[in-house]
Amino acid sequence: MTVTLHCLADVCLIPIGTAHSSVSNEVTLITQLARKSHLHTVLHSAGTTIEGPWNEVCNLIGEMHELIHANGVVRIQSDIRIGTRTDKSQLPQDKINIVEKKLKDLEK
Amino acid sequence: MTVTLHCLADVCLIPIGTAHSSVSNEVTLITQLARKSHLHTVLHSAGTTIEGPWNEVCNLIGEMHELIHANGVVRIQSDIRIGTRTDKSQLPQDKINIVEKKLKDLEK
Amino acid sequence: MTVTLHCLADVCLIPIGTAHSSVSNEVTLITQLARKSHLHTVLHSAGTTIEGPWNEVCNLIGEMHELIHANGVVRIQSDIRIGTRTDKSQLPQDKINIVEKKLKDLEK
Amino acid sequence: MTVTLHCLADVCLIPIGTAHSSVSNEVTLITQLARKSHLHTVLHSAGTTIEGPWNEVCNLIGEMHELIHANGVVRIQSDIRIGTRTDKSQLPQDKINIVEKKLKDLEK
Repeated sequence: MTVTLHCLADVCLIPIGTAHSSVSNEVTLITQLARKSHLHTVLHSAGTTIEGPWNEVCNLIGEMHELIHANGVVRIQSDIRIGTRTDKSQLPQDKINIVEKKLKDLEK
Repeated sequence: MTVTLHCLADVCLIPIGTAHSSVSNEVTLITQLARKSHLHTVLHSAGTTIEGPWNEVCNLIGEMHELIHANGVVRIQSDIRIGTRTDKSQLPQDKINIVEKKLKDLEK
Repeated sequence: MTVTLHCLADVCLIPIGTAHSSVSNEVTLITQLARKSHLHTVLHSAGTTIEGPWNEVCNLIGEMHELIHANGVVRIQSDIRIGTRTDKSQLPQDKINIVEKKLKDLEK
Repeated sequence: MTVTLHCLADVCLIPIGTAHSSVSNEVTLITQLARKSHLHTVLHSAGTTIEGPWNEVCNLIGEMHELIHANGVVRIQSDIRIGTRTDKSQLPQDKINIVEKKLKDLEK
């Protein structure tokens, strides 16, 4: 049965065998795809964070691979960090805010 | 549309907040799940390698999360390395065999 | 010989066996350590990006492990994405800016 | 101060911009380097597992990057899973053996 558990994923996609060391064309294409999707996504310097149901998040990352293959890249490797929790829901920015607040409390 | 691209994934699943430093109970449960699936899987010391269509591989990893949550773990983080290629198909063991052969050739 | 190659690393550290599902105390401690170091670091929701010579970056991540162990956590697992390039130097924010610029060009 | 904490690392190194989709030449070179080192290393289909003091393990991975750059690859990205624990020492094969034993116990 399809897994629809809520998750936070962070993906770093790497095209292989592209003959040029820049990956910004590929990151641009997958960022455009991410922003067109209905899922909440955030681009940072080491990857893209995606939030939503497990099956939809994984499918979006799969569509990123399909899109880059369609642009002529024959091999792609992604690193995905993916977390699920059943005790509460948390937005990506919440995680940063909690840490920044605790850092301020430490400085008092 | 569902992504069915063939992929090789390697997953390292970590239960969080379990009160004990051992993760072997959780790895045992997900290994049992992996071996019951129809996908080809290999356990190694740093993770589990899974081969098959993108959607089925991602769904199996999602089922691992569901199973561990059902066993009382409220938070789980996985690291997934996932690769796709359109130029040829390759089994996990093929990749090792090629390297071992090239190492022997270097020694000649 | 010690490797001093310039690198960009992104680390996601996970304490194991802590009896609570929150990791914000641990992330607060390592973020404080990161900001006290002379290396350039950026906190995001899925990890911390660190820039500098290979040996210093890896040592800082090792010090994060030591600090969390010193706070009573007996087991820690980190996922590190680390990149090096010899053709040019690039700041984390540069990578984002290039992609955002290319996205704007696509929309024209 | 240099971190010498014992660790188990698992590294997957990816050359970028190589003009060919195969990475076996690069994996062969780093495997040869790993086997020449005094650290215990194991090659599997999704990476190389390395065991030893934190600074030596990280330095060996840095030497892998240096070696691949010296072979003409201008950009390299690695994914490293690295774990430390202060409660006991464990070999890579130990982790597999425990899980296989628990699987047999479950089947009884």
